[in-house]
Amino acid sequence: MKLENYHLESHNSERLAKHERQLDFITSEISDAQSIIQKLVDFQIAIPSWALGTGGTRFGRFSSGGEPRNIEEKIEDVGLLHKLNGSSGAISLHIPWDTADNTNAIKALAAQHGLRFDAMNSNTFQDQPDQAQSYKFGSLQHVDKAVRKHAIEHNIEVIRQGVELGSKALTVWLADGSCFPGQLNFRKAFQNTLESLREIYAALPNDWKIFVEYKAFEPNFYSTTVGDWGQSLLYANKLGPKAYTLVDLGHHLPNANIEQIVSLLLMEEKLGGFHFNDSKYGDDDLTAGSIKPYQLFLIFNELVEGMDARGMDHREDLGWMIDASHNVKDPLEDLLQSVEAIMIAYAQALSVDRVALQDAQAINDVARCQEILQQAFRTDVRPLVAEARLRTGAALAPLEAFRTFKVRQELISNRGSKTVATGL
Amino acid sequence: MKLENYHLESHNSERLAKHERQLDFITSEISDAQSIIQKLVDFQIAIPSWALGTGGTRFGRFSSGGEPRNIEEKIEDVGLLHKLNGSSGAISLHIPWDTADNTNAIKALAAQHGLRFDAMNSNTFQDQPDQAQSYKFGSLQHVDKAVRKHAIEHNIEVIRQGVELGSKALTVWLADGSCFPGQLNFRKAFQNTLESLREIYAALPNDWKIFVEYKAFEPNFYSTTVGDWGQSLLYANKLGPKAYTLVDLGHHLPNANIEQIVSLLLMEEKLGGFHFNDSKYGDDDLTAGSIKPYQLFLIFNELVEGMDARGMDHREDLGWMIDASHNVKDPLEDLLQSVEAIMIAYAQALSVDRVALQDAQAINDVARCQEILQQAFRTDVRPLVAEARLRTGAALAPLEAFRTFKVRQELISNRGSKTVATGL
Amino acid sequence: MKLENYHLESHNSERLAKHERQLDFITSEISDAQSIIQKLVDFQIAIPSWALGTGGTRFGRFSSGGEPRNIEEKIEDVGLLHKLNGSSGAISLHIPWDTADNTNAIKALAAQHGLRFDAMNSNTFQDQPDQAQSYKFGSLQHVDKAVRKHAIEHNIEVIRQGVELGSKALTVWLADGSCFPGQLNFRKAFQNTLESLREIYAALPNDWKIFVEYKAFEPNFYSTTVGDWGQSLLYANKLGPKAYTLVDLGHHLPNANIEQIVSLLLMEEKLGGFHFNDSKYGDDDLTAGSIKPYQLFLIFNELVEGMDARGMDHREDLGWMIDASHNVKDPLEDLLQSVEAIMIAYAQALSVDRVALQDAQAINDVARCQEILQQAFRTDVRPLVAEARLRTGAALAPLEAFRTFKVRQELISNRGSKTVATGL
Amino acid sequence: MKLENYHLESHNSERLAKHERQLDFITSEISDAQSIIQKLVDFQIAIPSWALGTGGTRFGRFSSGGEPRNIEEKIEDVGLLHKLNGSSGAISLHIPWDTADNTNAIKALAAQHGLRFDAMNSNTFQDQPDQAQSYKFGSLQHVDKAVRKHAIEHNIEVIRQGVELGSKALTVWLADGSCFPGQLNFRKAFQNTLESLREIYAALPNDWKIFVEYKAFEPNFYSTTVGDWGQSLLYANKLGPKAYTLVDLGHHLPNANIEQIVSLLLMEEKLGGFHFNDSKYGDDDLTAGSIKPYQLFLIFNELVEGMDARGMDHREDLGWMIDASHNVKDPLEDLLQSVEAIMIAYAQALSVDRVALQDAQAINDVARCQEILQQAFRTDVRPLVAEARLRTGAALAPLEAFRTFKVRQELISNRGSKTVATGL
Repeated sequence: MKLENYHLESHNSERLAKHERQLDFITSEISDAQSIIQKLVDFQIAIPSWALGTGGTRFGRFSSGGEPRNIEEKIEDVGLLHKLNGSSGAISLHIPWDTADNTNAIKALAAQHGLRFDAMNSNTFQDQPDQAQSYKFGSLQHVDKAVRKHAIEHNIEVIRQGVELGSKALTVWLADGSCFPGQLNFRKAFQNTLESLREIYAALPNDWKIFVEYKAFEPNFYSTTVGDWGQSLLYANKLGPKAYTLVDLGHHLPNANIEQIVSLLLMEEKLGGFHFNDSKYGDDDLTAGSIKPYQLFLIFNELVEGMDARGMDHREDLGWMIDASHNVKDPLEDLLQSVEAIMIAYAQALSVDRVALQDAQAINDVARCQEILQQAFRTDVRPLVAEARLRTGAALAPLEAFRTFKVRQELISNRGSKTVATGL
Repeated sequence: MKLENYHLESHNSERLAKHERQLDFITSEISDAQSIIQKLVDFQIAIPSWALGTGGTRFGRFSSGGEPRNIEEKIEDVGLLHKLNGSSGAISLHIPWDTADNTNAIKALAAQHGLRFDAMNSNTFQDQPDQAQSYKFGSLQHVDKAVRKHAIEHNIEVIRQGVELGSKALTVWLADGSCFPGQLNFRKAFQNTLESLREIYAALPNDWKIFVEYKAFEPNFYSTTVGDWGQSLLYANKLGPKAYTLVDLGHHLPNANIEQIVSLLLMEEKLGGFHFNDSKYGDDDLTAGSIKPYQLFLIFNELVEGMDARGMDHREDLGWMIDASHNVKDPLEDLLQSVEAIMIAYAQALSVDRVALQDAQAINDVARCQEILQQAFRTDVRPLVAEARLRTGAALAPLEAFRTFKVRQELISNRGSKTVATGL
Repeated sequence: MKLENYHLESHNSERLAKHERQLDFITSEISDAQSIIQKLVDFQIAIPSWALGTGGTRFGRFSSGGEPRNIEEKIEDVGLLHKLNGSSGAISLHIPWDTADNTNAIKALAAQHGLRFDAMNSNTFQDQPDQAQSYKFGSLQHVDKAVRKHAIEHNIEVIRQGVELGSKALTVWLADGSCFPGQLNFRKAFQNTLESLREIYAALPNDWKIFVEYKAFEPNFYSTTVGDWGQSLLYANKLGPKAYTLVDLGHHLPNANIEQIVSLLLMEEKLGGFHFNDSKYGDDDLTAGSIKPYQLFLIFNELVEGMDARGMDHREDLGWMIDASHNVKDPLEDLLQSVEAIMIAYAQALSVDRVALQDAQAINDVARCQEILQQAFRTDVRPLVAEARLRTGAALAPLEAFRTFKVRQELISNRGSKTVATGL
Repeated sequence: MKLENYHLESHNSERLAKHERQLDFITSEISDAQSIIQKLVDFQIAIPSWALGTGGTRFGRFSSGGEPRNIEEKIEDVGLLHKLNGSSGAISLHIPWDTADNTNAIKALAAQHGLRFDAMNSNTFQDQPDQAQSYKFGSLQHVDKAVRKHAIEHNIEVIRQGVELGSKALTVWLADGSCFPGQLNFRKAFQNTLESLREIYAALPNDWKIFVEYKAFEPNFYSTTVGDWGQSLLYANKLGPKAYTLVDLGHHLPNANIEQIVSLLLMEEKLGGFHFNDSKYGDDDLTAGSIKPYQLFLIFNELVEGMDARGMDHREDLGWMIDASHNVKDPLEDLLQSVEAIMIAYAQALSVDRVALQDAQAINDVARCQEILQQAFRTDVRPLVAEARLRTGAALAPLEAFRTFKVRQELISNRGSKTVATGL
């Protein structure tokens, strides 16, 4: 599938008059529209290679069609998204699913699509065919040193591949934990994991980061060995300055205040990055902003406030990624919706009147504090997000463009209707 | 405190130009703005008498000042709210806290403020001084017939008072339940409660309704005898056509899908009314829309769809009420914020493109369904709500007006700074 | 694998002296030991065919070995369990995974193992290869009549197969629901489902029951169309006297009071049966009693009280089944642990002093009520359960016997180490 | 009320034969009964002064009678409990509710009852009459330095009073937090709190500890400033070696794995102490072990394992306290039940076969790990707990003794039926 510039130009020209009217209105309503638009232009959200195909649950999987069959086609799909929204300029690979021999060709292909390689992801939650050691009872936590060593070496190999591609970070998500009381000695599991992470850390290049992801439950159902932000922070602090905590929105207990966690991790200079998605019950991996859009805004509110307080660069100092699973929607459409929701939340957070908020907080004017945040959230900032797309040559309405230009149909006709993206 | 028309006129005239610009924009964006505005003008949300003062928790209570000291002052406060927002034209009384001798004077006072009397609320969760029977172990569920009889008679007395005032409904919220396994025989507790409700039902005038409220927990911490919508519906069905289920947003287990409950109760013709508030953890009784505004919208989306499908009157066929507790905000400011949030959610729900939604649902176009709801939610409909206020002579910006005209200061100067609204 | 009687006799004779000492002690401690033992002898818990192999999650699956490869081997495995514990005298089949041509041979095989055929389970949550209609967007709820018809016919076919085998019930678990707000019209989904269930109900033989299972979430993550006991009861009541609600312990929102639900469903004469398992977070499908054994006891406490109040037969009037998934344990060992935990909870519930409990409830002596339940729960009733096994010729210590006689090793040697039980 | 030794002797002699039979049995069943009994004799659980009266909820309070009216009567009540169970040899005071002028007399009275003074508790969650600064918007976190200073000085005063009484620890539970998004800057709230705690820490005597308690929500309903163990640990680490985390069982989000938190805090040498209670929904403050007794056992399992691994003294190296609220039971009866449940869980944890467990963990024999824990939990260890009481001269059956000797009736006759324990 090749989406040409003239496609987008025609799409945009049809919508331009309406867009400009909407943009004029919002520009007259908020004070720093131009600055917000520029930040939106700069902001890029990485797409994980495994989110390009249909997901599934333990009960089954219902394919769509035209899914990418290899890393080249995954890059092509992310390129399509980036072409459409101008905000998906990075891909996050998963090893071994995305292991490539032809590194130079892969790099060239990505460059051609304007993509960089975001954090690399290792996999120690599945056994690969003929794997020498099994991760059934954990990987970096395992009671058997030989299994730990196997998992450590895999992570080091992932770093190696990432170095070749120009990635700068390793994300370690561990499924390690236990399903029953008594199964694990929690302390020893922690210490084994720490020792394993130290070996991986030692293999990190100087300009790399390691992100220690946490998750409250699933696929283990009694305990997880990196179960919450507190545990992840313990690991990150013990590992050293290159280690950070990674927050995935779906990885919390019910009712957790994620925005506060974000604020405190920024305070501790240990927030490394984000996996965006949404959920109602558990790690449901739904489209970002589809269930709790106000929470997404509140999280961005803390991100903007906390990063600005530290003088951090919004684009580069944190890792931004989607991590979703698409069971009932076209994966690419779902990703376009997620990116849109994230950009909206970011734009809203940028438009918060911070001086007024600080003043209201300083006198405990709670009703006013609420008004200030709601003012930002209730304002329709979509024209700012659309304008950012327009300025990068992307589509004013990416999902509509995706449908108008029959992208999926062409992918199916090129790739077939029964393809399965590698991996899960 | 008397807020005069000229106050509001001056307030509005200062904001009129800006408002008209915003209204013009939104009117050009959505198709049926005038019809929505008219529905907003008609929509009224009752204010409960107990929400006019500062709330508290089991750990303490921090007063504000100028709280109403009696039913007259409570009516005055709701009158103030209604003057400011044009949408709070009803008061919901709580007996015995609001028992009045001078019914005619009270009715006249309410009429003067343009208020009607919404559902009456009985109280069998506290013992009043020198009460003959104690509700420590429940009221309508109690193992002792004498206690049940006492609680039944109280409810019948509440109906009697309501008839005098012109109310048309009784809301029964029971704190009944148990704190420990074994304390209750669940079946007998249900049957005692049903028998008691039947006696109350028998005392209802023909044009009255009884609302059976449910709540998952608190103040009982193991079981509640009307614990969820399923139990409430059982009671309502066994009682008869005048009995309905009442939904309070805070009375659910974590992650409950409240909008689906609303839809099914409407389907069963047993939804009676609503208590609006918001919460993050339990029955937190926070300002409506302050935590999960998208959920509030989704609930209104079901309400509008379900009521329209049955040809129900939005104004009259359900009972709409706020039930909140204000620990850190001025109670009147908080109520203004709640009403605003409710009106916004209602306006958004009215603006959903229902034909398009049905079409998308009919072909399982999930991404499109989501787009349609998000389109409504992301649109800034506040100018429609403001316009509805303008047309009824209320304030374009009620909270600002409340502050500009120093309403709270005047209430404090009239009533004192140490007043406590009767009740909790 | 053939576990011979002499194996068990030798196993038991080694443990007999110790067992008799323990039995003497408990028999002297509680008043009606003999009656409890007889009820334990009679009590049988069905084993689902899909629980005989290793389960998995969406992240992967780690096999054990020697898993049954077909329905004959599944029957053999349940026969083994029943031989060991004397309490697993039924198998619950899942269609199409267990569809058999040779019904007579299958029936003879089951009879040979002393097994009857429990409720039949239909499957409309997966698409089978080359299936004419897809269940991606639901089955009995589907917007397309053709898909509903396909699912209805499948259920009728399952009844037909069950009739041949001598089963007496159909369990319908629907994965139907939605993943995103707006995807479904809840009311129409309910009505479509009801209409579909009515067609299935019409095909039920007179002596059959249909169990309508409910589940709060998963694999749909926004709504489910039979989401809680209230919805299931609505369906069951609308369907008629052969329709019942089925309770699976893992299918509730956090903190739900399941024992109260059980009590109320018994009161309404609509409790049909049970799926036992345990969980900490969601539908974790862990070993019964492994996480919340007191809850399991409290549920049996309501079952015994409620069934006795109605004069129901403990063995026959409800369907008892395990529904678990084994990710880190040997499936057969896990099932032995589940059955043991269920029998213990049942024995404890049988030993509750009901007269004393009623007396204490009647005077709200809450501390005493708690003491009475805790007395039953804290008593070590395992010798009663072991004695029941001894009397039926089963093993005093089933799990030890399973290991001593190297059952798994023999299964692996017979069947191979890479087998996968059909289905999930 | 004076419970005399001869009362207890007569109580015990009536039960002795039965007790000895039960003790003989359990002693023959487990290997180290004598060592467990000795540890039970040594183990003491502090009673908080505020748990001696009836609690309440925001909806009301139903008194019992004979509640202690002052610190002397509170000490008398704890003395009674200790007389009955031999395990309640400490009282935990709450300032200002328990401020005493006559320190020496108070100390003498406590000594007479065999009680020591456990951790002191400060109160910055309520405004006392005529308090110069209000805690409405927090105390140690407050935006206003003057309020923080007021709260700091209160804590220092509590330390001063504790020093006089011979206490060795300060427990700081902060209600600080926020009710609405935007109300607080989380980072500044944390930093203000830390700065305040540092001033309190500086005032601690060398042999004192400070316990930083965490709580997920209530009385604030959006965020709390010490919200989870991770936050508490951050404070404790930044404060220094005398600062520790305190775990209250009711202060977690739904489904939290508390036993893992306990294990990790012990690993970090930062677990300070415990508040025991039980809950189903939130911080329900129910009787310990009344809802989730297996969880209580699992927590003690980690405590015993973790303390032994560090060579810690079970009696002295952690603070053990009950924190419950009694709405429907006699407070003293409830406390007797809580202590009994705690002692049972401790005895079960002591009886776990640790060597076998380590061996099973080392080979991932998950079924066996579960069996080992269940073996300990299912064993009826109550005779061991009773024997420990017998050896200290306390009652074999404390709750029965409390009733037989009509303790409550005598307290009511001495103190009256309308007393209210000071405080909440």
